[in-house]
Amino acid sequence: MPLQHPKSSEKKIVVIIGGGFAGFNAAKSLANKKEVHVILIDRRNHHLFQPLLYQVATAGLNPSDIAVPIRARFAKAENVEIHMGAVEKINLSEKFISTDHGDLAYDYLIVATGAQHSYFANPEWEEYAPGLKTLEQATEIRRRILSAFEEAENEIDPVKQKSLLNFVVVGAGPTGVELAGAIADIARTVLVKDFNHINPASARVLLVEAGPKILASFNEKLSQRAYRDLQELGVEIRLSSRVEKIDENGVTVAGEFIPSRSVFWAAGVQASRMSFTPEVAKDRAGRVIVRKDFSIENHPDTFVIGDMAHFELSQNNLLPGLAPAAIQAGKFVANVVLQSINGQVRSSFKYLDKGQMATIGKRKAIAQYNSLRMTGVIAWLAWLFVHVLYLIGFKNRISVMAEWTWSYIFSKRGARLITSRDWKLQK
Amino acid sequence: MPLQHPKSSEKKIVVIIGGGFAGFNAAKSLANKKEVHVILIDRRNHHLFQPLLYQVATAGLNPSDIAVPIRARFAKAENVEIHMGAVEKINLSEKFISTDHGDLAYDYLIVATGAQHSYFANPEWEEYAPGLKTLEQATEIRRRILSAFEEAENEIDPVKQKSLLNFVVVGAGPTGVELAGAIADIARTVLVKDFNHINPASARVLLVEAGPKILASFNEKLSQRAYRDLQELGVEIRLSSRVEKIDENGVTVAGEFIPSRSVFWAAGVQASRMSFTPEVAKDRAGRVIVRKDFSIENHPDTFVIGDMAHFELSQNNLLPGLAPAAIQAGKFVANVVLQSINGQVRSSFKYLDKGQMATIGKRKAIAQYNSLRMTGVIAWLAWLFVHVLYLIGFKNRISVMAEWTWSYIFSKRGARLITSRDWKLQK
Repeated sequence: MPLQHPKSSEKKIVVIIGGGFAGFNAAKSLANKKEVHVILIDRRNHHLFQPLLYQVATAGLNPSDIAVPIRARFAKAENVEIHMGAVEKINLSEKFISTDHGDLAYDYLIVATGAQHSYFANPEWEEYAPGLKTLEQATEIRRRILSAFEEAENEIDPVKQKSLLNFVVVGAGPTGVELAGAIADIARTVLVKDFNHINPASARVLLVEAGPKILASFNEKLSQRAYRDLQELGVEIRLSSRVEKIDENGVTVAGEFIPSRSVFWAAGVQASRMSFTPEVAKDRAGRVIVRKDFSIENHPDTFVIGDMAHFELSQNNLLPGLAPAAIQAGKFVANVVLQSINGQVRSSFKYLDKGQMATIGKRKAIAQYNSLRMTGVIAWLAWLFVHVLYLIGFKNRISVMAEWTWSYIFSKRGARLITSRDWKLQK
Repeated sequence: MPLQHPKSSEKKIVVIIGGGFAGFNAAKSLANKKEVHVILIDRRNHHLFQPLLYQVATAGLNPSDIAVPIRARFAKAENVEIHMGAVEKINLSEKFISTDHGDLAYDYLIVATGAQHSYFANPEWEEYAPGLKTLEQATEIRRRILSAFEEAENEIDPVKQKSLLNFVVVGAGPTGVELAGAIADIARTVLVKDFNHINPASARVLLVEAGPKILASFNEKLSQRAYRDLQELGVEIRLSSRVEKIDENGVTVAGEFIPSRSVFWAAGVQASRMSFTPEVAKDRAGRVIVRKDFSIENHPDTFVIGDMAHFELSQNNLLPGLAPAAIQAGKFVANVVLQSINGQVRSSFKYLDKGQMATIGKRKAIAQYNSLRMTGVIAWLAWLFVHVLYLIGFKNRISVMAEWTWSYIFSKRGARLITSRDWKLQK
């Protein structure tokens, strides 16, 4: 039985599923618009600045530095309601969704549930190779990295000790490159003086990539420069190397077994799962194929945006899975909803390419924006500027700047905590 | 087979178990002393500023604001080695300890493993009523508090909705009082505008105490003042009320059942368990009875300090389980070890009573120092000054001040994150 929201009987109900870049910005654009009552649903209570997750995973930033409570951001928007909950099904024909706390009818629906890691046909690898999409995963990776050094310090067997200091990152997209660079950096600068029985700088950091180059979405020259910068940091790169097996002892890459307790997964992304009635057209990565206004064929009031959407900019040229693209789509779709309510013609989406960037270790980066390319320290400063600027919330920006300034000057990390999964008394 | 440390063959080996206030300060006092090689063992990698744990539990501070990596603090002390590990047994006769990664011989041993919550004869209560001794417990309590509001917002049944907003704190010592005050404060100021279907200010916060008054260790007048301040904040106080049962539905107090999913335990402390060979004399709370120099009878080279020690200042007057007492004991014992090595007479301990304080909500506190008593805003400012001053590490102090200034001015909380126990993909 669809649950119609009583408050909003005179307004159109817009349900947004997902509080990531796409859904969060759609909601922001609809805040305080008199035509609509917005219900934003997310499984988590926070909006996450995903591009900096690797900093949490490597003890550079606190979880709360890159996350804001969604509810707090909409406290002043009377027409926006936040539900913390999970959506199980979308019924397009009857226009309602089923959540874990009841059904909800909508006039307009915006689906922005994002993407998650894919272990291809090997879901059992997850236990030994966590991905980096959530705060929980980031603190788990942090726990594993810091614990590996602690265990190596206590290990008497030199072979085991050495294997504890092998770190393997699978996938050389921006996340994999940034994670590998940060691990190399933490070992060689932050931890280097803290141990008695091991030399943290001797840690091996391997970056494994199935394709023929790293950062494949970047310009060829930038990719090569990043390759050299990473090597200089001490990261060993294995190109055209497919992972064949991961278990508690290590990882097998192109026939070679690498003993490691610290394998991290930054390869393979698939759209999050969602059940539609009737079923909708999806591409091979599970993304919903959408029209020029992000609506689903035959369902003009249902939109899919962000990493969940397959949107063709032109033939064989998809809208990329980047934060700026998701933000633009969110704002655009919010406007389309208002146009539709007001009987106006729907505008069509124009993507403004804001380029892309990736950091390599502490002081280098690569960045491209149209024909402009930057490398080294200049690119890193640009990266710093853009990321701090984008970080939502007055307080977070200052706190992140303070955190970074401090860790840059003193080569320290503020969030070097090993917290366990279990909170109960250890007797 | 005792594992003698090779590096320190010419120095006396001092093993310290526990990196809390007592053990951490003992190690600091022995750092860079040529007579000794120090091995500090802790199950965790961080030294924790326990008095502010309730701030983490109520989303006011980040875990890393009140914790420092032990290893980093001793990076420049060549004679101090940090082992992350658990100690299972102490063999006093043969002077070695057994850890989870082997045995370790010592010349001097300082045991400072602290205290933990006691659920008396009801260990099954822990699942439903976490205590507040570790960072993991603090983030678990934070998760429960914030999730209770989220679930109440989604709950249609008004009876269930109301019971979700019942918060029960058991035990009215400083931790219980500070936690109850902070929950009342967060409900009435921080969250108050963020929800659509509930009024967070209607949350009931109950403080349950088996004894006849709150903050029993304080002067009678201060205790009464704190009682009134708490009531003004909206905290319901039940004195002389014993908890009879806690389960998933709520808590039974003096015959009355209070439905609640958010019960927190701040009552009953016992010394941490440790196995000694031969057995040593302990008091009813499990504390080891020590002599005037904190050594164990017949074992002049083994010391017990901090919450683990039963130290008589005078007849029926024990050294209190407070941070300043633990710090003083740590420094004192370090000095006794040096005196003993150098053949000097051991000095005897003089306790400098630094008083005690407790905050009540956002802007009030009580404090006593000898005959000096403070209440209200003055006491709160004194509390703020002392706590920020004590917080170890340059960076933490600034970060905590910034965090607090921000949350005080804007009535916001920086760390309002609900993170789950499980880091794996939720499908």
